[in-house]
Amino acid sequence: MVTENKIYYNNQLLSFDDVKLSLNDRAFKFGDGVFETIRINKSNIIWWDNHSDRLKHGLESLKIDYDLKKLYSKSKELIKLNKVQEGFIRISISRGDKSVGYLPLDECEASILIQTMPLRDVKFEAKNLWISSYRKIPDICLPSNAKTIANGLNSSLAKIQAVENNCFEALMLSVENNIAECSSGNIFWVKNNILYTPKNNLIKGIARAKIIELCELDIIEDDFKIECLEDADEVFISNISWLGLPIKSIEPLNYKYDKYLLCNIIRQKLLQNIEENHG
Amino acid sequence: MVTENKIYYNNQLLSFDDVKLSLNDRAFKFGDGVFETIRINKSNIIWWDNHSDRLKHGLESLKIDYDLKKLYSKSKELIKLNKVQEGFIRISISRGDKSVGYLPLDECEASILIQTMPLRDVKFEAKNLWISSYRKIPDICLPSNAKTIANGLNSSLAKIQAVENNCFEALMLSVENNIAECSSGNIFWVKNNILYTPKNNLIKGIARAKIIELCELDIIEDDFKIECLEDADEVFISNISWLGLPIKSIEPLNYKYDKYLLCNIIRQKLLQNIEENHG
Repeated sequence: MVTENKIYYNNQLLSFDDVKLSLNDRAFKFGDGVFETIRINKSNIIWWDNHSDRLKHGLESLKIDYDLKKLYSKSKELIKLNKVQEGFIRISISRGDKSVGYLPLDECEASILIQTMPLRDVKFEAKNLWISSYRKIPDICLPSNAKTIANGLNSSLAKIQAVENNCFEALMLSVENNIAECSSGNIFWVKNNILYTPKNNLIKGIARAKIIELCELDIIEDDFKIECLEDADEVFISNISWLGLPIKSIEPLNYKYDKYLLCNIIRQKLLQNIEENHG
Repeated sequence: MVTENKIYYNNQLLSFDDVKLSLNDRAFKFGDGVFETIRINKSNIIWWDNHSDRLKHGLESLKIDYDLKKLYSKSKELIKLNKVQEGFIRISISRGDKSVGYLPLDECEASILIQTMPLRDVKFEAKNLWISSYRKIPDICLPSNAKTIANGLNSSLAKIQAVENNCFEALMLSVENNIAECSSGNIFWVKNNILYTPKNNLIKGIARAKIIELCELDIIEDDFKIECLEDADEVFISNISWLGLPIKSIEPLNYKYDKYLLCNIIRQKLLQNIEENHG
């Protein structure tokens, strides 16, 4: 539960309502920045190294210069100040606010926002997926494996469309018609005791990495067409919030599933890993 | 020259430094919004209907509900208050600040920012283009002909790369390898007195529309490969700031051009149209 609402903005500790973002901030003007949402459990930051590595990769992909050194201690400090036991840390880094049009100026300095957020209440029950008409933005347009702010609009449009079609989440394909990922997580499926998950044009989720590390099954990461899901034994989706959520149907194709065993096991393994990751 | 710096934020007239954007603003978090940059000449708003139509189309594409009715009068008021003679109006509309993750909540209300900006000083001289490795985001990922905030990152990455390669602007291809547009404008070329310009997967600029309307040449709008530019008689780029700017080379292919006559004529026609559009 979040009881206080302090944030860090460019190394200043402020109340949430006292932050003044620049109107020229390039995240606000052009989606020009990256972010991470990181799980907090019993006031500990979970899987920090994975998030930090992806943040670093995103900053490098966008050529944003920012030293990540003090991020961990500042995040820890904020969790303590806000008395967060369960929830999330959101870190967003914008290229800064000095530009002429799309071109950042040499004196443009990255700005950073660290905030805590409450845990989202998602029931562990079987969900339905909507195959979105919005495709994942290809890697040759925006770096796919970076959580860019701009990429958020693509995910948002897919999510809105899924909910309009009475589904929980959107399943997104690549422009090459391969299965990519969900609007806010990755997808896995099991067939004959082999675990499958897409490899390209997706954000490689931290929960995804942990599932691959912990699942104890043979895994095939590759490009797959949507038809591969038709006769899967079990399908589930993952992110650091859901961990694993079983899928009962994929619409509008009306693919149906009724086995949730592996998803349950995976979820327990991730919960256990979270408990062990208190450092 | 901008002498005052008032802005409109959600119908409130404020000083630039007094605006407080919400940290939860979806433009800032996800690039979830649209914008227009509109030319001001002798304190008049130029080509308003074209900009307003594109803004409306963008809002519809993104399913953002916002009534554009009072935008013109508010923009006029701001120009007067800020005593702007030559410059730009930037209008940006965000989906709002009520979300759970990527999903906007029902009570999410669009927020709007109107600001004035100085004219950019671009010399009317022949420029070079860099063929970017970043491709335009396809229409099936984000609506191409909407000026979305998210699309700004794609343009920014291409522009940064062009400047790193000592070029003025980036020339961007589609994922299908067709010529699309520049990072901040459209492209035209002339061969045997026919004017050519790409048709798909691009932002249809307002200057582009005016050029098509005013040029008095046969025009072919279609899909074209980069090789079409190799033996063009003349190449130029357009936006509401440059109007028309001649191109002297396209790098790294080393295509060279030394005729700038049509660009000059087009530019004069646009300047004349701007003078006539004072209403």
